[in-house]
This record gives sequence, C-alpha cells and structure tokens, in this order.
Amino acid sequence: MTSTSHRAAPRRSRRAGRPGADEPDLRQLLLDTAIAQFARVGIGATSLRAIATAADVTPAMLHYYFGDKARLTQALIDERLLPALAALRAQLELAGDDPAVLIEGFVRGLGEVVAQHPWLPPLWAREVLCEGGALREVMLQQRGPSIPQMLAQRFAKAQAEGRLNAALDPRLLVVSLVGLTLFPVASAPVWQQLFGAQDLGADALREHTFALLRGGAGVTIPGGAR
Amino acid sequence: MTSTSHRAAPRRSRRAGRPGADEPDLRQLLLDTAIAQFARVGIGATSLRAIATAADVTPAMLHYYFGDKARLTQALIDERLLPALAALRAQLELAGDDPAVLIEGFVRGLGEVVAQHPWLPPLWAREVLCEGGALREVMLQQRGPSIPQMLAQRFAKAQAEGRLNAALDPRLLVVSLVGLTLFPVASAPVWQQLFGAQDLGADALREHTFALLRGGAGVTIPGGAR
Repeated sequence: MTSTSHRAAPRRSRRAGRPGADEPDLRQLLLDTAIAQFARVGIGATSLRAIATAADVTPAMLHYYFGDKARLTQALIDERLLPALAALRAQLELAGDDPAVLIEGFVRGLGEVVAQHPWLPPLWAREVLCEGGALREVMLQQRGPSIPQMLAQRFAKAQAEGRLNAALDPRLLVVSLVGLTLFPVASAPVWQQLFGAQDLGADALREHTFALLRGGAGVTIPGGAR
Repeated sequence: MTSTSHRAAPRRSRRAGRPGADEPDLRQLLLDTAIAQFARVGIGATSLRAIATAADVTPAMLHYYFGDKARLTQALIDERLLPALAALRAQLELAGDDPAVLIEGFVRGLGEVVAQHPWLPPLWAREVLCEGGALREVMLQQRGPSIPQMLAQRFAKAQAEGRLNAALDPRLLVVSLVGLTLFPVASAPVWQQLFGAQDLGADALREHTFALLRGGAGVTIPGGAR
C-alpha cells in the first residue's frame, strides 16, 4: 500500500474523541501526514500540534494513536522506513552475485522505492545525511547486514573474480550508487530549477545512470595522481 | 588563505570591548567559528550567543563585527562561499571544451575546494540540499552562469560533436558529478562508519571516481525499460 492511497482519502471535519469502527485507516493517514511534515521541515522542527492541524484532527486524537513524538518517529521507522528498505534488500538478495544484475537491481529497485515513498529522499537528506539527523543511528544500527554492506561484499567478491572494474573500490562503488540514485532524487528540486529541467523525470534519470555505469563518460580522463 | 590557518590561531582569554590593532584576524576567526557552528547544527539552529561562546568572545564583540545573524550569513556567502566557488569556476573556464579535461578539472578542483573548506560539504547538505535551506536561493540566484550551467552547456556541445557518451543526459551528468564528488564527502561520516572505512580518504575517492567515469563499472548492465 502506498502513501498516496492514504492521502487520497477524503478529508472530513475536524475529528475528536476516540475513532469509530468506520475509521480503520485514520492511524495510517496520521502517520502519512506526520511523515510528510517530517520530510518537509525535519523531525526536530515538527510539532505534534502542527501534524494534528495538517491532518485536521485534535492533538488528543494524535496522542491517542501515537503518544509522543518519539513514538511517532518509531512508528515511521518500524512501519514505513524499514519495510521499504527490507523489500529492496530482499530483492537484492535474490539477485545473486552477478555485479551487473546487482547494480541494475539496485538502481531500478531504489527508483521504485522512492517512487512509492516520495518522502524518503528528503527525509534521508535531512535526517541521515546531515549531522545530528534523527535517523542516522537507525541506519547505522540496523540488525543484520544492511544493503550497503551486502552490496560491498558482493562487489569485492566479483572484483576478486575479475567480473568488476578492478580500478574501483567496492565500498566506494556503493557510495557512488547512492550518489547516482538517491542523491539526484533528493536534489531534484534544486537542479530542476537550475537547468529549467522539470521535464527530466525518473525514467530519464534511470537510463542516464545505466549509461554512465555501463561505459562511463566515454572519455579518456588524463587522471593519475598529480 | 584557508580556514585552517585561522583555527590554528592561539586562543586567548575572553575578549571584551573593541578590538585593538593587535587583533587584525579576529574578524576572520569569528567568521570561521560561526561557519563551523553553521555546518554542524545548521544556520537556523545557531545562536549568536553560541558562536560568541565558542569563539571565547562577548556577544557584544560578535555584534561589533557582524551585527545580526543575517549579516553574518551574508559575510559567509560573500567572503567564503562565493569566492570558493568562483575559484573553481575560473579554473573550469580555462579548461576549455574537452569534456575529459572538464570532468577531470571538476573532480580534482572540487576535491581541492572541500579539502580547503571542510565546512562546505555539511553546510551544502543542510542549507542547499534540504528544503528550506538558508543557502538554496543563493545557489539558484548567483549572478552569471553558474558552474552547473556552464558544465551542462559544454557537455551538450561535446556530445553533439561526438566527444561524449551519447546515451548520457548532459544536465544529469552534472548532477552525477556532484553525486560522485560532493555527496561522498558530505556522507563520509555515515559510510566510513558503516564500512569501518576510516582509511578511505580523498585520494582513494578521487581515483575511484576517475575509474568509474572512465569506464563505468566494467559490466554489461542488461538495462532497457522494463
């Protein structure tokens, strides 16, 4: 279920009291609203009152479902963030050891994740990339091998077997893949305006990224340490 | 002059009143201190009082040099941010039309800029990349063609002349270059911890990036729209 389906729910007059049996999706709607605010202004800068106002419910209703902001953030992590990443991880685990299939799977899979969860890139930029971000520790402390670690290990193995450009660093290749997929989506509001390129969407980005990963820029960079 | 030289200045006891002739560098030191705080917690979250405390001066002294936070932010823009970018732009303008030379010049030049100004990547992540960032408009409204626009135009020309991988988008190549240079430095605290890779420094990143831009991942990605 994507967040879009919740957002499309009809708005009603300001809700008060406990939810009736006719509002099974209200908790999901409140979580969607909270995540949208978190992504826009940051978790630290978002008040429960602002979320309640945006969702057109009373603060008491928000409190009924989520308690305080710490528990609301935990719900975001447990019910939205980690499931989104787990789906991508499961997909990549099935992709096996072929680096070409892994790279294509990551680029395509991450594109699908951000298409389904448009809050993820801005939230990641603010709460993981920035120092003091509220989700950085979650990303670092995930149970089990994370997607980056799994990819780096498989890239290292593929490289040792001569199936990956020997001049790359397998760990930095993971950083490069994030820089070529998640970063461009998070920064799209900037570069779309800078280039007047509102026409450049997800498909163009994916094909460009595949082309770069296939053959580089198609130039002979002088390179070498200076 | 790099910010490092200011940071290395010996700390003295808490300063009060107007500066004497023996403190010509105090204004620069205060600006360095402010920028370090801005980079760490964000411009919005930094108080003048916190900067004064960190610089071991009175708030009155900070006010004497910079007035309010808006003028302090303007000093950061005019005296540090735009000069750092202008130096890179001047270097790239001299690089001419050869995309290989342009790409190498950008990767190498940006590496030098962030080595000289370690506050730049975290400040860029928080204040340009994140929505509502205090420096986003500055980046979008720079007078004259910006570095990204200049690069995109030259890449488009090179591609039209058959000197650049025809499957790339010239504008997205600029985004890719930022994602392969500035983004990895801004995210280094995350991936260095994730991979236990404190050994991977600026030289390793640059050589990896050159290798990727030269020949891609060295794999045949199935690719194509699905």
